[in-house]
Amino acid sequence: MKRIGFLLLAVVTVAGVVAHMVRATGQSDEDSSPIYGVKIPTGYRDWKLIAVNQLLFAGKGEQLRAQLGNDIAIKAFKEGTLPFPDGSIIAAVHWTRVPSEDNNKVLDGPFPGTQSFVIGSLVNVQFMVKDSKKYAATGGWGFADFKDGKPGDKALHEACFPCHAPAKDRDYIFARYVR
Amino acid sequence: MKRIGFLLLAVVTVAGVVAHMVRATGQSDEDSSPIYGVKIPTGYRDWKLIAVNQLLFAGKGEQLRAQLGNDIAIKAFKEGTLPFPDGSIIAAVHWTRVPSEDNNKVLDGPFPGTQSFVIGSLVNVQFMVKDSKKYAATGGWGFADFKDGKPGDKALHEACFPCHAPAKDRDYIFARYVR
Repeated sequence: MKRIGFLLLAVVTVAGVVAHMVRATGQSDEDSSPIYGVKIPTGYRDWKLIAVNQLLFAGKGEQLRAQLGNDIAIKAFKEGTLPFPDGSIIAAVHWTRVPSEDNNKVLDGPFPGTQSFVIGSLVNVQFMVKDSKKYAATGGWGFADFKDGKPGDKALHEACFPCHAPAKDRDYIFARYVR
Repeated sequence: MKRIGFLLLAVVTVAGVVAHMVRATGQSDEDSSPIYGVKIPTGYRDWKLIAVNQLLFAGKGEQLRAQLGNDIAIKAFKEGTLPFPDGSIIAAVHWTRVPSEDNNKVLDGPFPGTQSFVIGSLVNVQFMVKDSKKYAATGGWGFADFKDGKPGDKALHEACFPCHAPAKDRDYIFARYVR
C-alpha cells in the first residue's frame, strides 16, 4: 500500500509539474487553442474591418460574418503584401443572422418587399496569427477557434490548416479587402 | 452695350462671391451633402465596427452592409449612452453581395450544400453626424449619402430623417452593437 501511495503521489506530482510547464510555455492553457496555443487577442473587436460575408449552412443555420485585422494585417491587405508579415492577426467574427422586422417595416415603404437581416448573437470567433518560424509547418499561421471564450478541441483545430490550403496563393487567407 | 456688359460683369462677380461664400461655410460644396453639408470624413473606412447586416431588395439586388463608428460613437454604443453625444459619426458602408464559388468549393467538403456570399464592390456610403445645435430640426443628426464620392441630390437627402424617425427611441439609429 505504501508503495502504491508513493507511486500515486509521484504521478500526481509529475502531472502537476507538466501542467505547470505547459502553462508556462503558453501552449496548452485552457484558454489557448490546442496545437497552436493561440489566445484571444485583447481588444480584437475594435480592430479595423477587412470584409463582411454571409454563410447559409444547408440546414444548419445562417450567419453574418466580419473579418477584422490588427494594424499589421490591415496594412498588408491595403498594400496587397503577400505573404502577410509576422505579427499579422486576423479575426473572423461569426454571428447568427436574424430577420429584422423593425427594419422591414421601415424599408417596406420606399422599397416594398425588401428583407433585412441583422446580426443576432455571437456564435464563435476564429483567429489566424502569423509567425513564420513558430508555425512553419502550417504555412506560417497559428489557428484558433473560440466559442463562449473557450477554445475548440484538438480535432477541430486539426481541420483549420487543410481547410485553408486552397487559398495558398493568397497566403491561406480567404477574405479579400474591399474599399 | 457698355451698360449690359457692366451688368453681366456684376452678375458674374456676385455669383462668384456667393459661390465662394457658400464654399467657405462648407454647406453646399459639390462634395458635401445637400441640406446638411456633410462631407466624407477622412479615414472612416478604418473606424471600428458596430454591426453587420444584409438587405435583399425585392428585385433590386442584394447587399451586405457594415456600420462603422468614430471613437465617440463607439463609446456611446458600448455604454448604451442615449442620445449619442455631439461629435458622434456613424458610417453605413453598403456593398454588393456576390456568391463566392471559391468559398463554396472549400465549404462543400465539411458542410455540404453551404452557400457563401462575400462583398463585391462598394455601392454607397452614408453618414450620420451628431450636432444637436446645428441639426436641431432633424433630431440632432446631419445626414449624407455618397456614391462614387459624390453626394446624392436634395430629394434623396430629404428622405433621410423621416426614414429614421421610427428609431426615435434609439436616437434615430437602427444599428445595434453586438459583441
